Amino acid sequence: MKIYDWHTGPYPARVRIALAEKNLQSRVQFVSVDLWKGEHKKAEFLAKNYSGTLPVLELDDGTFIAECTAITEYLDALDGAPTLTGTTPREKGVIHMMSKRAELELLDAISVYFHHGTPGLGPHVEIYQNAEWGFRQRDKALRGMHYFDAILKTQPFVAGDVFSMADITVIGGLIFAGLVELAVPAECEALRAWYAKVLERPSVKNRITMSEPAEASV
Amino acid sequence: MKIYDWHTGPYPARVRIALAEKNLQSRVQFVSVDLWKGEHKKAEFLAKNYSGTLPVLELDDGTFIAECTAITEYLDALDGAPTLTGTTPREKGVIHMMSKRAELELLDAISVYFHHGTPGLGPHVEIYQNAEWGFRQRDKALRGMHYFDAILKTQPFVAGDVFSMADITVIGGLIFAGLVELAVPAECEALRAWYAKVLERPSVKNRITMSEPAEASV
Repeated sequence: MKIYDWHTGPYPARVRIALAEKNLQSRVQFVSVDLWKGEHKKAEFLAKNYSGTLPVLELDDGTFIAECTAITEYLDALDGAPTLTGTTPREKGVIHMMSKRAELELLDAISVYFHHGTPGLGPHVEIYQNAEWGFRQRDKALRGMHYFDAILKTQPFVAGDVFSMADITVIGGLIFAGLVELAVPAECEALRAWYAKVLERPSVKNRITMSEPAEASV
Repeated sequence: MKIYDWHTGPYPARVRIALAEKNLQSRVQFVSVDLWKGEHKKAEFLAKNYSGTLPVLELDDGTFIAECTAITEYLDALDGAPTLTGTTPREKGVIHMMSKRAELELLDAISVYFHHGTPGLGPHVEIYQNAEWGFRQRDKALRGMHYFDAILKTQPFVAGDVFSMADITVIGGLIFAGLVELAVPAECEALRAWYAKVLERPSVKNRITMSEPAEASV
């Protein structure tokens, strides 16, 4: 399998963490797509993923699978424990809901803020910006942090008692928040404590090491 | 189980179609949440779904599951054939990718257009609008129609040879397109032919009948 991604990207981080949680890294070859050069918006890459986003998984049969949730579903079905997407119907439903909510209310909102409310990837990539929309999304993300803080006051992980895809999506959101210097408010103590704890997981902690450009095969 | 929704909503349609495909309608009680009165943005409903969107599934144990993909995952895990989210890792990955792509490039884009580029649900509900962003998303949806047309030129269903959650998401998109009078371009012949065909499925065709307000229990 190949993963097309960029080593510091918050969305790529979601799949890298999922791979490490499932101990599948050795089965994957990483291919760098340079976000800062806008390679993900060029025809060669758009043929792999119409939406022009990273990461993309290429299977050995040539099938391309884009979108972090879809890739995580693939990896989770490929291999057994630990499961990241749940086993029972209720677990599956709640994990998918909380992961989607983490996209809507945190990660995707911060991404829109980055691309529209800041210089983003620079004028050669950000050919259209809507700053007002970007700032609205930043404010939404800050509210989202309070939402997840409230959740984590009542349970150890984002979707309940077990680490899951939903935690990984919130981690992606906070990685992106760090990149755009959007601090988690001090009063969000449960979210901050949870983040400090999950940053210690080897899948998250060693993420940068496993992602140096030197390791990428282009 | 209860489903909180609104009988003409395009997102609610996704879950209603999934229920009918799996022949699970009789296990569900429908509760109306009046979009036009903005009931989905009021505190009582936000306690059920932080994001303030329909539909929401309430399990008998009181758990709320929001987001169409999450609800479909729940229903699919609850019951056997036909499966809407795939069986093999590759099927699961591709179906989730194509369903997410149908959200990004079609359904969600049209939703943003409706809420920002048209009067939407009216001034008492649409308290903030960004018309420029709305029109951008309308144009994105039109490009999305061409994308799905190209896909459907090469295969009978959105994610391959079998009807799946991804088809349902595109159906949701085209239902919404109809509501906002965004016509599928005449040249998108494969998309139009596919839509004419899926509209004949009982799950889609009888959707309105099964959704009259008189049947809702509030």
